[in-house]
Amino acid sequence: MDNKELVNKISGKLGRNKTDVKKLLDAFVAVVRTRSSELDSIAVPGFGTFETRKRAERITVMPSTGKRLLVPPRVVLSFKVSNVLKNKLK
Amino acid sequence: MDNKELVNKISGKLGRNKTDVKKLLDAFVAVVRTRSSELDSIAVPGFGTFETRKRAERITVMPSTGKRLLVPPRVVLSFKVSNVLKNKLK
Repeated sequence: MDNKELVNKISGKLGRNKTDVKKLLDAFVAVVRTRSSELDSIAVPGFGTFETRKRAERITVMPSTGKRLLVPPRVVLSFKVSNVLKNKLK
Repeated sequence: MDNKELVNKISGKLGRNKTDVKKLLDAFVAVVRTRSSELDSIAVPGFGTFETRKRAERITVMPSTGKRLLVPPRVVLSFKVSNVLKNKLK
């Protein structure tokens, strides 16, 4: 299911026009993106939590050459499904 | 950031009332839930993809008693962050 179909489904469900739904979805994504880059988590009840974690920098060794490489620190976004939904999907 | 704050942020961004935003978010969650229970994936551009995978049933052995246990098959929802967003978060 792509974004177009998603927008269609939601607009059909609510009887709203698609431009409206699209704007709102974009705003939702924008808020989650901004917040997650600030390392905040976003909880959506009955659905799950978007969490960001900071991965520390680490040193890795290339097996082929034996060279040491510094992997820079990264911010990783993950989604944790809520327990309610997890049990419903079973 | 909880759901209330999320709704506030989005409604502030768009100049819409909160009830409106809440309804739309609920519809979004409902569509993703329905679709994922049908094992369909949902792609949101610039954000990521919600995917469901079926975990097959398997036999596990309890270490303390040595008893064999059948773990039933499960449906698991996961979220894969889009490459665009992944690189932006770095």
